[in-house]
Amino acid sequence: MSTIKPRTLSGFMELLPAPQVQMERVMEVLRKTYSLYGFTPLDTPAIEAADVLLAKGGGETEKQIYRFQKGDSDLALRFDLTVPLAKYVALHYGELSFPFRRYQIGKVYRGERAQRGRFREFYQADIDIIGDGKLDIVNEAEIPSIIYKTFTTLGLKRFQIRVNNRKILNGFYASLGLTEKSGDIMRTVDKLEKIGAEKVTVILTEDLGLTAEQAKAILDFMAITGSNEQVLQALEGYRGKNELLDLGLDELTTVTKYLAAFGVPEENFAVDLTIARGLDYYTGTVYETCMLDHPEIGSICSGGRYDNLAEYYIDKQLPGVGISIGLTRLFYVLGEQNMLNDALNTAPADVLILPMIEDLAPAITLATELRAQGIRVQLYAEQKKFKAKMSYADKLGIPYAIFLGEDEIAASTCSVKDLSKGEQVTVTAADAAALIEKGLAEKNAGTVIVEN
Amino acid sequence: MSTIKPRTLSGFMELLPAPQVQMERVMEVLRKTYSLYGFTPLDTPAIEAADVLLAKGGGETEKQIYRFQKGDSDLALRFDLTVPLAKYVALHYGELSFPFRRYQIGKVYRGERAQRGRFREFYQADIDIIGDGKLDIVNEAEIPSIIYKTFTTLGLKRFQIRVNNRKILNGFYASLGLTEKSGDIMRTVDKLEKIGAEKVTVILTEDLGLTAEQAKAILDFMAITGSNEQVLQALEGYRGKNELLDLGLDELTTVTKYLAAFGVPEENFAVDLTIARGLDYYTGTVYETCMLDHPEIGSICSGGRYDNLAEYYIDKQLPGVGISIGLTRLFYVLGEQNMLNDALNTAPADVLILPMIEDLAPAITLATELRAQGIRVQLYAEQKKFKAKMSYADKLGIPYAIFLGEDEIAASTCSVKDLSKGEQVTVTAADAAALIEKGLAEKNAGTVIVEN
Repeated sequence: MSTIKPRTLSGFMELLPAPQVQMERVMEVLRKTYSLYGFTPLDTPAIEAADVLLAKGGGETEKQIYRFQKGDSDLALRFDLTVPLAKYVALHYGELSFPFRRYQIGKVYRGERAQRGRFREFYQADIDIIGDGKLDIVNEAEIPSIIYKTFTTLGLKRFQIRVNNRKILNGFYASLGLTEKSGDIMRTVDKLEKIGAEKVTVILTEDLGLTAEQAKAILDFMAITGSNEQVLQALEGYRGKNELLDLGLDELTTVTKYLAAFGVPEENFAVDLTIARGLDYYTGTVYETCMLDHPEIGSICSGGRYDNLAEYYIDKQLPGVGISIGLTRLFYVLGEQNMLNDALNTAPADVLILPMIEDLAPAITLATELRAQGIRVQLYAEQKKFKAKMSYADKLGIPYAIFLGEDEIAASTCSVKDLSKGEQVTVTAADAAALIEKGLAEKNAGTVIVEN
Repeated sequence: MSTIKPRTLSGFMELLPAPQVQMERVMEVLRKTYSLYGFTPLDTPAIEAADVLLAKGGGETEKQIYRFQKGDSDLALRFDLTVPLAKYVALHYGELSFPFRRYQIGKVYRGERAQRGRFREFYQADIDIIGDGKLDIVNEAEIPSIIYKTFTTLGLKRFQIRVNNRKILNGFYASLGLTEKSGDIMRTVDKLEKIGAEKVTVILTEDLGLTAEQAKAILDFMAITGSNEQVLQALEGYRGKNELLDLGLDELTTVTKYLAAFGVPEENFAVDLTIARGLDYYTGTVYETCMLDHPEIGSICSGGRYDNLAEYYIDKQLPGVGISIGLTRLFYVLGEQNMLNDALNTAPADVLILPMIEDLAPAITLATELRAQGIRVQLYAEQKKFKAKMSYADKLGIPYAIFLGEDEIAASTCSVKDLSKGEQVTVTAADAAALIEKGLAEKNAGTVIVEN
C-alpha cells in the first residue's frame, strides 16, 4: 500500500520530540523576556500580495523569494518580519498607539542554496519600537539590553553585543569626501576580519579608486579598539570634522551610558567601529551579536535604528529601532556545539501511570488529581508486558512512574518510582504530587543553554 | 514616496494588538492543557513536496491547495496537520516511542472561496495518539475528556461533545445490505437537521434507490435519542444483527463509561447516532463538538479513531485517535459573539513608568527591579506633555502608571497610580511590585471566554 517515500524538504528544520521541547523552551524564554519589556505579540500572515511584499524592491533577497500565482493573485511568502511590520503599521496606523512596541516570532522563507546549517524556512524572533515622527535615543540602548537579558536568561554568557552608529561612519566618510562610495567602502571594510588590512587596502585603492591617504585614514579609523571608554575617547579626536559624525558620537556616548544603567556589563557589550550592517535603511545605532567562542558563526542577533519604517506604504515618518534573532539557525548552532542542556526534562510527561488492574477508573482518578496540581501525566493503558511499559518510560526519559495495584487502591495510596535514582515510595496522591513537583523543580532548575 | 497601498489578503486573519493578546491566551491554555495529558509539541514545515502532501489524493481539498514550483521542485502548503503527522511518523518511525502523543498548533492553508468567517490561512490545534499495531480503547475516551478540559479551562460551558462509532453505522448499514451505499447514505443522513426527515427519505429512495423499508429503518435508527444510557439501551435492541455493529456498541459503551471516569459531565457529552464524519478513514469512535447556543456555527472541534495513519508512506499499521480545533475560526466566532473576556489585561505592559526628571537612570533601575518580579514594564521616555503620556497609557489600557520625580528618588520611593480606580500611593519599589501583582491577579482572574 505504501507508495510514496516520506521525506521532508531539504533546508526545512523538522525536529524530533526531545529537541522540539528544547526549541519550545527557547521560544518561551523569548516570549517572556520580550513581554517583560512591554512588547505586544503580533502575528501576521505568512503569505502577502507580492507587490506589497516587494514594494521596496527585494534586492539580493528577491531571487530567493517564494512567489506564486493562486487564481488571479500574485502572492509571495514573507522573507523577513520587517516588511510585514511596515505594512501592518501603515495599514493600522490610526488604530495603534506610538511608540508601538511589538515582538513577533514567526517563520520566514528564503529559497537559498541548500547547505548545512542554512534554512529555507526559519524562525525569526524580532522586537521593534516604532515612533510616530520621533523616537527617543534611550530606546536604542534598551533594545540591546533586552537582548542581553534574553541571552543570559537562556544561559548564554560568552557573547558580546557590538554597537556602532551609522552617523559616525557616514560622517567620517563624508569628511573624506567619500559619501558616494561609502556603501562600497563599508562592504569592503566588513571583510577586515576575514581577509586582513592589506587586502582591504588593495580593494579600496585599486577597485574603488581611493587614494593611499584615504585608505590609510579608513584603516586607522577602523583600527580604533580598546575598552568602550577608550574607543569613545579616541573618537573625540575626530570631533569637529563633520556635523553628522559629531551627532553620531553624541548618540553612541549616550547609548553607552544608558546601557550601563540597564545593567549590561562591559564584557557583554563593545563599541565596535567595524560594525556597519549592510542595509541602507539603518541610520543610527547598529548592532551585531557574536558568540565569543564561535566567531565563525557570525552574528546571531542584529539590528539597528532606522528613520523610515514604512515610507513605501504611508506618508508618515515612522522612525524605529529593532533587532532580530535568527532563531532556527541559532538553535541549530547550539545543537551542533552541544550547548543545549540535556539535563532538563524533554519527556512528553513528568510521570507515567501504570495501572496494574483491569479497571482503569482508579488510575484515571489519580491522573486527574495530579494534573490538577500541574503535573503532566500520561496514563499507560496499552496491553503490554511490564518490561515493555518500563522501557517506554525509559526511552522517553519520563522521570517518574506510578504503579497502581490492588494494594495501593485499597490503602488509597500509590507507589511512586524515581526512574533515574531507582527509589520507590508508597504514598498518598497528595504526597506523590509534592514529591514529583520537588524532583521536577530540581531537574528543571538549569538554563536551556549550557556553556562547556 | 508612498507608492503601494498597504493591504492584507482577504481570508487572512491579522489581529490588532489587543485581540492578538486574547488569541495568545487561548493558545497558551491549549498548549498547557495538552501538555498536562502527556502530549509533546511538534512543529513541521508549512511547505512539503507536493507528491508527499497529496499521496492520498486531496479529494475536495485538492482544488484549494496552494501549490507552486520553486526551481525544479513541485511544492505545496500544508492544508491540514494530519498529513504532515503521517509523514512525520513514517519518516521517524524508528526514532519514536509508541503510543506517540503529539500536539501541534500551526497554520494551514486552503484557497477557499473568500467569505466572511472563512479563512485561507488558519490555525489548527490538533492532538493525536498513534499506536504501533494496536491502541487501547481508553484513548478514545481520553481524547474527548481533554477537549472537555480545554474548553472548560477557556471558560466555555455551554458546549456538547457528540460521540458516535463508525462501526455501529457501518454494521447497521451492512445489516440492511447497504454497505456499498453507506457513504452516500451517511452524507444524506448528515443533512437531517438541516432539511428534515421527509426530504431525506426522498433522497434515500429516489436518488439512492433504497426501498421504503430501508429508508424507514434508517430514519428509525437515527431517531434514537435521549440520555446516553437510553441511547445505548435502545442500541442493545440491535445487538446480534451484525458483528461489526456489536463490536461498535461494545466500544461506545466502554468509551461512555470511561468518559464519566475522566470527569466529563453528562451535559457536555452525548451519544449521537447522526454523527458520521465524512472522511472515510475514520473507523471507530467519531467526535463533533457544538456550542449549544450557536448550532449555526457547526462543529468547533472534530475527530475520531482511524486504523491506518500512514499507509501511503510506510508498511506499518499505525492506528490512532485524534481531534482538531479550528482555532482561527473558533476565535473569530467568539469575537463575533462577544464572548472574549475584555476584563483581562490586553495591554502590552502592566505598568508604565513616567520619569519626571531628565536623567533616566533611576527610572531604568526601577524598571529592572519590577521586571525581576515578573511585572511587565514599559519605560516612557519620549519628550511629550504629561497629558499625552497619560493618554498613551489610557488608550492601551495599561493598568498602572508610576511617577518618578525628584522627591520620590530622594526618598527611595515611587508613586503608583491605579489608572482604573484613580487611586495613587507613594511606596517603595518592593511594595509597588506587591501592590501591582495583587491588582493584576484580580484583573486577570477570569477565564478567556465568557458566556453572556
